[in-house]
Amino acid sequence: MKYAEINADRLWSRQLETDRIGATPAGGVHRMALTPEDIESHRLIAEWAFARGFAVDLDEIGNMFITRAGSDPELPPVAAGSHTDSQPMAGRFDGMQGVLAAFEALEAIDDAGIRTRHPLTVAIWNNEEGPRFLPACMGSAVYAGVIGLDKVIGQRDADGIALADCISDLEAAIPDAGRWPLGAPLAAFLESHIEQGIELESSGNIIGIVHGMQGYRRWTVDVIGEDAHSGTMPASRRRDAFVAATDIAVALRKAFADDTDEMRFTIGRFEVRPGGISVVPGHVHFTIDMRHPSGEALERQGARVEEICRENAGRCEVKVVPTSSAESIIFPEDLREKFQSAAEWRGYGHQPIFSRAGHDARHILRICPSGMIFIPCKDGISHNEAESAEKEHCAAAAQVLADVMVELAGRA
Amino acid sequence: MKYAEINADRLWSRQLETDRIGATPAGGVHRMALTPEDIESHRLIAEWAFARGFAVDLDEIGNMFITRAGSDPELPPVAAGSHTDSQPMAGRFDGMQGVLAAFEALEAIDDAGIRTRHPLTVAIWNNEEGPRFLPACMGSAVYAGVIGLDKVIGQRDADGIALADCISDLEAAIPDAGRWPLGAPLAAFLESHIEQGIELESSGNIIGIVHGMQGYRRWTVDVIGEDAHSGTMPASRRRDAFVAATDIAVALRKAFADDTDEMRFTIGRFEVRPGGISVVPGHVHFTIDMRHPSGEALERQGARVEEICRENAGRCEVKVVPTSSAESIIFPEDLREKFQSAAEWRGYGHQPIFSRAGHDARHILRICPSGMIFIPCKDGISHNEAESAEKEHCAAAAQVLADVMVELAGRA
Repeated sequence: MKYAEINADRLWSRQLETDRIGATPAGGVHRMALTPEDIESHRLIAEWAFARGFAVDLDEIGNMFITRAGSDPELPPVAAGSHTDSQPMAGRFDGMQGVLAAFEALEAIDDAGIRTRHPLTVAIWNNEEGPRFLPACMGSAVYAGVIGLDKVIGQRDADGIALADCISDLEAAIPDAGRWPLGAPLAAFLESHIEQGIELESSGNIIGIVHGMQGYRRWTVDVIGEDAHSGTMPASRRRDAFVAATDIAVALRKAFADDTDEMRFTIGRFEVRPGGISVVPGHVHFTIDMRHPSGEALERQGARVEEICRENAGRCEVKVVPTSSAESIIFPEDLREKFQSAAEWRGYGHQPIFSRAGHDARHILRICPSGMIFIPCKDGISHNEAESAEKEHCAAAAQVLADVMVELAGRA
Repeated sequence: MKYAEINADRLWSRQLETDRIGATPAGGVHRMALTPEDIESHRLIAEWAFARGFAVDLDEIGNMFITRAGSDPELPPVAAGSHTDSQPMAGRFDGMQGVLAAFEALEAIDDAGIRTRHPLTVAIWNNEEGPRFLPACMGSAVYAGVIGLDKVIGQRDADGIALADCISDLEAAIPDAGRWPLGAPLAAFLESHIEQGIELESSGNIIGIVHGMQGYRRWTVDVIGEDAHSGTMPASRRRDAFVAATDIAVALRKAFADDTDEMRFTIGRFEVRPGGISVVPGHVHFTIDMRHPSGEALERQGARVEEICRENAGRCEVKVVPTSSAESIIFPEDLREKFQSAAEWRGYGHQPIFSRAGHDARHILRICPSGMIFIPCKDGISHNEAESAEKEHCAAAAQVLADVMVELAGRA
């Protein structure tokens, strides 16, 4: 029997090639969804696909699909992939590692001359990160019907650029791409990703088999006071939104402090207006991102957010709006067993692991069996230009994907 | 003897006309220095000046001068004025009230056919507010030699637009303006301004005779942590710059809390980077503005800033940079007495008052006797779209300026 054997050098050279698109001086990438840089990375991967004789298709929300045909054109594809977009000034492996591992899996299977019954597809989900267009995981959420295309397609970014125009730009950059029906059935979806934590690094294992993903709740908070002159308005008469918002932020942080270190409570965006040196700020807008592996803890602690904001707003008004949430999920056991068998057969140290981050596989699980594997990421640092992963770990992930894809797709 | 009599209706109609330039929906103005709106306000005032037969000149830093000739061309002008630029989304009287009062004074003196020995000049100091180009009070500081032209002229705003190009735009908008030598001698400078506090409103007086101006110290603080993924990085391992910066901000506020309500401590700009909802922020940049009538208190409390920042930075690094400062000043007594006599003669309730805000007169005092008067401003609200002043108070200020200008300039 022929087996697909990953070409680690080819995979690594492709990684280095995509690293250059949106490269930052400190060794990261700045490649937000559907920017010219993100579109260029799609174009480059499409070029590799065409050169290999794979089909390239786009759907209405800007997801891209690269397909190696199977022997039975009636069967839905076995898919693997991730995303090419990044957070602002972020790392070069988050997303791209999973895309390139899936692409290498198709190439290695092709190199080995293995015919499969199901087609094999690399899925590149559009806008996983979300800093430019909302929500995060937009492409997979729309594909899986979690949110309607009409609910997101009309939006513009902070510079007024329309999402629909950006998707047209992507289509124009790959004129030979075909049309993929939004929500078309998939036989399965596999996603490889860097861990973004330190469990694998600590244990020395190189494959984490993800059994579940933690849920989250998000809010925006607006604190409304009154702009005033910083030289004249006495403290006793100020309605300083910055003062109120810092009191709220500190109170929230103390309320959600957790000895077990399970709670993830983050204020990542915090905008003070009008922002003049000599103006007492009348408005602060900030976001809350709360994550916990336990759905019960998330429910109970999340229920306290609005009250804590109100109690600490001092002389200001406060408006708390829940913006999104997701339940904790469990991935199907049979897919996890297939990952485990493949890792064992290849001699890779492996372990079960829980995903603290959100990924596209969360949504795709709604429409087909889905699963994820993690590889180590240096010091657990991610969403950061210093993000780093090893060449041999990237190759191991691609190998596990290739082996499980062939098994799921069936030999023709 | 002929006396200048202010035309309150003309003055108010000019106020309403300038209010339209950069008008905001909530009744304020957004007219930052050298924006098309600020240049349009200069152009409009120059048009009124030309129509009246007054000379219009510009200097190298974009200050504008409107001059009614005196009988002795050798004598330096007696000047009055203020500024036309505003803070972002701010009030319509701050600055413009003082410019229009000075212009009305010249017109009223002209209407009365009074010939003066010294020329009479309206000075419009460029970029008093400072949110677009630094420092605040740029035009008067450069004019008085407090800072060299070469130190400021090379700067660009946040959008990359060069200050020098903006000054060229101003010159192009008023092609008939002459050239005014930077730092040319002035016989005196008078500035009228809204109080931006509540003392006059509380006492019922309508003219405040400013005896001095409080000093200030300013700093920028950079808090450096490490960007991280909000879902994966546990609290125990984070170096969250937002957490450190809020602890610092709260500690500073508590340290400078003041039972006498004299201290003005403000954090007006506070920028969190990278600013993603799901990214633990690795960098916060904020400003500190500290003002106090007592130079000793300012010195003593200011000396604590850096240490408090360091002690509360937790796992982050902190960089504290003093950016500017000014001593408390006292205005010359003989000018204050002239304001007092004029107010008394006209029957305006008046009182001595201390300026909590900074004004161009601070710098111009370096090169000539200078003084200020205040008029009431509703509820003390300023640097805010709700800023408001009364028509009769604006007229009273113009009347006092006109009377004192004639006295200083001498009848020919």
